[in-house]
Amino acid sequence: MSMSFKELMKVLGLGAVALVLGVEWLNWLMRRLRDSRGPLKEVLFFPSPQVCVEHLFIRHKHFPCACPLPHGIETSFSRLLVHLLSARMSLDLCVFSFSHMELSRAILLLHKRGVVVRVVTDRDYMTITGSQIGALRKAGICVRHEMSSAVHMHHKFALVDGRKLITGSLNWTLTAVQSNKENIMVTEEPELMGPYQQEFQKLWEANDPANHKPQCTNGQLNIKTCKDR
Amino acid sequence: MSMSFKELMKVLGLGAVALVLGVEWLNWLMRRLRDSRGPLKEVLFFPSPQVCVEHLFIRHKHFPCACPLPHGIETSFSRLLVHLLSARMSLDLCVFSFSHMELSRAILLLHKRGVVVRVVTDRDYMTITGSQIGALRKAGICVRHEMSSAVHMHHKFALVDGRKLITGSLNWTLTAVQSNKENIMVTEEPELMGPYQQEFQKLWEANDPANHKPQCTNGQLNIKTCKDR
Repeated sequence: MSMSFKELMKVLGLGAVALVLGVEWLNWLMRRLRDSRGPLKEVLFFPSPQVCVEHLFIRHKHFPCACPLPHGIETSFSRLLVHLLSARMSLDLCVFSFSHMELSRAILLLHKRGVVVRVVTDRDYMTITGSQIGALRKAGICVRHEMSSAVHMHHKFALVDGRKLITGSLNWTLTAVQSNKENIMVTEEPELMGPYQQEFQKLWEANDPANHKPQCTNGQLNIKTCKDR
Repeated sequence: MSMSFKELMKVLGLGAVALVLGVEWLNWLMRRLRDSRGPLKEVLFFPSPQVCVEHLFIRHKHFPCACPLPHGIETSFSRLLVHLLSARMSLDLCVFSFSHMELSRAILLLHKRGVVVRVVTDRDYMTITGSQIGALRKAGICVRHEMSSAVHMHHKFALVDGRKLITGSLNWTLTAVQSNKENIMVTEEPELMGPYQQEFQKLWEANDPANHKPQCTNGQLNIKTCKDR
């Protein structure tokens, strides 16, 4: 059976359309399959071995770091730093105990870069030896503490850019990072992120010093001026 | 234009097939959309108000509980109990501090029901006043503790039936449940569950007393006989 030129063109045209639609459909299917794996989910366990993390702080260093620690190794701690330093807009931190120097350095760096940092911490633990809370306040970072002395603000979570949740058992101390058995997870799952963001906002507002009478004259408990939002 | 009976039957038959296929396709689409919401994700915040949880322990109670606490109210703590008591096969618990009486009651109940319970806990905190670890061991539950006295086993997570992960900042104490600002999440997300299950197994094997020389003669640190797996 022979085909006229016009008929041949029709068949070829339809074939091309079918091909394009088929490729589009395959693309859609691949996208759906990828999406069903869902957003970022990472679990990190501690203790984390001590390695050099200098390259995470100084982006365009020309010479390799000369410190005696191992270089070029990824650890749970370096992953935590990477996630924290990925903040571009905001960092909301809710942490019981904060004395880790390098984590403090990371928060101060974010603040310097213009990232809006808010910290809620525990009233008793913020004044213990080695606490970095004073250094954060000195730099102008807004810190609020649990107002009641009867309860502990025992959370240990951070919210990066209102999108990424970091939460677990890990306090921001050297012992926790280098010695203890600890866990954190990092996720962008909205169903998990959302409730933590709401909890942060609730604690932020509940511990607004403007709503509380001064309870003591201890200078360390006075809230320093900061660009509060 | 008229149609023969045969032709009409053909059209109706094809229509019916198309309808069935369409309904099937819609079903498939709905299933995909439901799946893309993914597995269980629940976030619970504490402190949790004190309410009666008696109905969670005694399934077929004929008369309402006579205790003075509020009844019929769901709280973060009652949700935690529901998730724990949902265990049918196994419960792997990794917890720093465990003194909460009702959580202890729940674990003992699971053990009595034949659920395989394994506990990894902190060496120092297991012997403090009010610790429930002794009661668990007495009942024949396998408990292992961090062998090194230099580090803390600071995790607070539980794995229900190797499928459901419960993790967060909450220690299993009355203060944590009723006073502190705490969080836990409950999820069946395999990407989160998997790493915690591996960590549990690692700690379980690392703290097998068979691999360690006795370090002290304190009776409380001797491992009692239990049906070890």
